[in-house]
Amino acid sequence: MGDVESLSLKEQLERDPFARYLGIRVLDVGEGFAKLRMPVRSEMVNFMGTIHGGAIFSLADHAFAAASNSHGTTAVALHLDITYFSVPPAGSILTAEAHEIHLSRRTATYRIEITGAEGQSVAACQGIAYRKQKDQVDSDGNFGKA
Amino acid sequence: MGDVESLSLKEQLERDPFARYLGIRVLDVGEGFAKLRMPVRSEMVNFMGTIHGGAIFSLADHAFAAASNSHGTTAVALHLDITYFSVPPAGSILTAEAHEIHLSRRTATYRIEITGAEGQSVAACQGIAYRKQKDQVDSDGNFGKA
Amino acid sequence: MGDVESLSLKEQLERDPFARYLGIRVLDVGEGFAKLRMPVRSEMVNFMGTIHGGAIFSLADHAFAAASNSHGTTAVALHLDITYFSVPPAGSILTAEAHEIHLSRRTATYRIEITGAEGQSVAACQGIAYRKQKDQVDSDGNFGKA
Amino acid sequence: MGDVESLSLKEQLERDPFARYLGIRVLDVGEGFAKLRMPVRSEMVNFMGTIHGGAIFSLADHAFAAASNSHGTTAVALHLDITYFSVPPAGSILTAEAHEIHLSRRTATYRIEITGAEGQSVAACQGIAYRKQKDQVDSDGNFGKA
Repeated sequence: MGDVESLSLKEQLERDPFARYLGIRVLDVGEGFAKLRMPVRSEMVNFMGTIHGGAIFSLADHAFAAASNSHGTTAVALHLDITYFSVPPAGSILTAEAHEIHLSRRTATYRIEITGAEGQSVAACQGIAYRKQKDQVDSDGNFGKA
Repeated sequence: MGDVESLSLKEQLERDPFARYLGIRVLDVGEGFAKLRMPVRSEMVNFMGTIHGGAIFSLADHAFAAASNSHGTTAVALHLDITYFSVPPAGSILTAEAHEIHLSRRTATYRIEITGAEGQSVAACQGIAYRKQKDQVDSDGNFGKA
Repeated sequence: MGDVESLSLKEQLERDPFARYLGIRVLDVGEGFAKLRMPVRSEMVNFMGTIHGGAIFSLADHAFAAASNSHGTTAVALHLDITYFSVPPAGSILTAEAHEIHLSRRTATYRIEITGAEGQSVAACQGIAYRKQKDQVDSDGNFGKA
Repeated sequence: MGDVESLSLKEQLERDPFARYLGIRVLDVGEGFAKLRMPVRSEMVNFMGTIHGGAIFSLADHAFAAASNSHGTTAVALHLDITYFSVPPAGSILTAEAHEIHLSRRTATYRIEITGAEGQSVAACQGIAYRKQKDQVDSDGNFGKA
């Protein structure tokens, strides 16, 4: 078992318990960029028989976390939104690509596209990250906004 | 095994595969309102060791689905956003309350509050639902926006 | 004085009283696309001495209205968001470009970029339009969501 | 001519050039709270003959600026969203009330309700402010996110 500090970001992201639980794979991660994949499994379906919005969002959120932590500064989510376009059929494989559209010292903004197996648009996300500084961890659990 | 049509909305929401997977319980659902609960399990943790934003969102999204489907008209998610305030400690139980703030014939808007075990604010969501009419299912999978 | 019906969309957009009040010019408008320009005048400044967020948003919103009404179907705003990146200096000329990222029968989604005179990123917007059908005007003023 | 430093927040907000241009009046401002009013004038109408979304947003944004600057720390807008519910008739007077829903050292979140003369819901906004520290002004114009 390697030391967590010595793991690459890609390895850390793939060991993430929730991402493993959902079967998310990190295809690529670079400065301000990430590409991830998730198969739509039967556990991800909602009571209407289509994929749960929370599963689609979780993939997008993970791509956002990957891209926003790619600069070596810890970044936490401040705000995200998602617009749903279409319902991928059962058995689909979803791809999420996150791209940085703005970076400043304390905040950064990303767009995340979710597409289906044939490249059709499933959802579009936007996320704003707060970039922490080491001495600003807040003792009462307010994260990153210290 | 009962017929799906004859199940109450609460029963349908609790049989939802993704909600069961996450351990979400529906405490209450009424016209334009829903209250749900989810324990933060070890599988929901991210690579930073705190609860994954996708798990918090999934609880909020399910509360939104419950409230928006409470009028007997099928409603699907068009847009949601989430603002994160604090990180609940491991072992927490999260509560989501969704309230309708506007209802029209084809769209409806909800606010969803996520709180921790001591009532502290964890996140705030907003969601816009599109309310379907039976003859408007779109053959190419565009959901609810036919 | 021409008949309103016979005016092009570009002419209608430029006769829009609020857009004229703000000095907005429509440079280009096509199917799912619009490009507009607005000079930052002294009346648009806020109490901090920088351009008011409402003026930047108004330019973005007008670009969104142009692009979403470009298909010949009346479209009204359902939801917009804006993320602010930088403050353009006094005397700047701002440009807004709106691009359609999804179109369905009843809704459409747009991204609008606001840039300064040197092309620097000032703000990014997203907007969801509801596309009306003629027989769905709501008598009590609920717009487009009938 | 008084010194700007010695003006109350309410006076500063009312001297704001864009707010004066739009006829916005500050009815009340307190810690984390503001209530403003704006008459819908003929210049605020769009090409469809109804109030321009940018004018409604500008009122909401100004209420947000008032509430977020009420603690004595300079706060700038990071992100806002607006959901439109109904179209106020010509000659209406709109009221905006902003309430703080979360405050941390560096960010704060507000909800702003826009209502018409009879109290009907016109739009709902949410805004996230970044709270500056004096030594963090960014030399290249990135505002508040230094």
